[in-house]
Amino acid sequence: MAKVFAQISMSLDGYVAGPNDGPEHPLGENGESLHEWVTALSSWRRQHGLEGGSVNAESDMLDDYIAGVGATILGRRMFDLGEPHWGENPPFHTPVFVVTHRPQPPLTRQGGTTFHFVTDGITSALEQAGAAAGGQNISVAGGASVINQCIAAGLLDELHLHIVPVLLGGGARLFEGLAPKLDGIEKTRQLDAPGLTHLTFSFTPGATRP
Amino acid sequence: MAKVFAQISMSLDGYVAGPNDGPEHPLGENGESLHEWVTALSSWRRQHGLEGGSVNAESDMLDDYIAGVGATILGRRMFDLGEPHWGENPPFHTPVFVVTHRPQPPLTRQGGTTFHFVTDGITSALEQAGAAAGGQNISVAGGASVINQCIAAGLLDELHLHIVPVLLGGGARLFEGLAPKLDGIEKTRQLDAPGLTHLTFSFTPGATRP
Repeated sequence: MAKVFAQISMSLDGYVAGPNDGPEHPLGENGESLHEWVTALSSWRRQHGLEGGSVNAESDMLDDYIAGVGATILGRRMFDLGEPHWGENPPFHTPVFVVTHRPQPPLTRQGGTTFHFVTDGITSALEQAGAAAGGQNISVAGGASVINQCIAAGLLDELHLHIVPVLLGGGARLFEGLAPKLDGIEKTRQLDAPGLTHLTFSFTPGATRP
Repeated sequence: MAKVFAQISMSLDGYVAGPNDGPEHPLGENGESLHEWVTALSSWRRQHGLEGGSVNAESDMLDDYIAGVGATILGRRMFDLGEPHWGENPPFHTPVFVVTHRPQPPLTRQGGTTFHFVTDGITSALEQAGAAAGGQNISVAGGASVINQCIAAGLLDELHLHIVPVLLGGGARLFEGLAPKLDGIEKTRQLDAPGLTHLTFSFTPGATRP
């Protein structure tokens, strides 16, 4: 496999989903405010089977992330909250490995998405994703918990962070509960977009293990 | 007064000081890792009575912030932890208003710094600082709590955030306990520096009041 990466939108106060997530608010209260920038882009719209949208440096950036993905990792809660909205043709278009405590047979959808349910942890999920990815990248699509588990295990290579200038005041925090890490995170890219900031960090594997 | 601003270094996980701050670690454990970039700059060194240091886009940026300051706001804990280290010529060179519960007579130091102790809250401290600033800016120098109080009261106009790619794993969080704020924060400046990112946000006053 090439690399394991995550790309996620985060509020100034560090949340990637708002408080009280559930069927009413799959992204938590006000969570959609983190994603307004991306739903306007042609690359996001194409991935979701929609036409139109802006073509600019941000859509090029997003196209780059999407193009090389051979497998996807999801947390159980993101799967449960997202699945009713993704429909028959989910936006992943790759094998998806859902990290969960509840075993379940695979679920095959249209457009190349099959959900596999992995009950023996993030490392196993990444191994299975690596075997399925055919040398392409693995996208850790979220939520916060599964990305944090990857960082804690030293298994994340790259993080694309979209910093949105809002405060959510609660919800799911990226980087929650991680051990100190003073070396091995390097900023490798910065894109100044209207209204928000896109930063890319490379992580040296292993260094976050407590 | 011109404007109320803060400029502070923050870890990726949202901390502006490490855990377990105290006489042993005035900035918390590993907190100094947030400030390595700034202590290398000529502008910071000059402010602290030291010679040398780098002159570059970052020192110009810092010179800009420092130049227009007519008064400074500090939290009590930052005063208590910092004072033993600042010596006879503290780095503020303005009247300083310390937000505290314990009344105390003013403390006059060399180089233009006099500490005044304000016991009736952040709004009063900002009013007194405004009167003392003679039309110049007010710097809210920290720690996190006093900056958060300013944001919560809708009294911060501008925030210069230096995002340092480390994880501290605990400590004092900027933006902790603030109400949701979906409008009124605007990114106005972005400086891509080697190793870190400098972002400036303007805040529309009042909008964060719960």
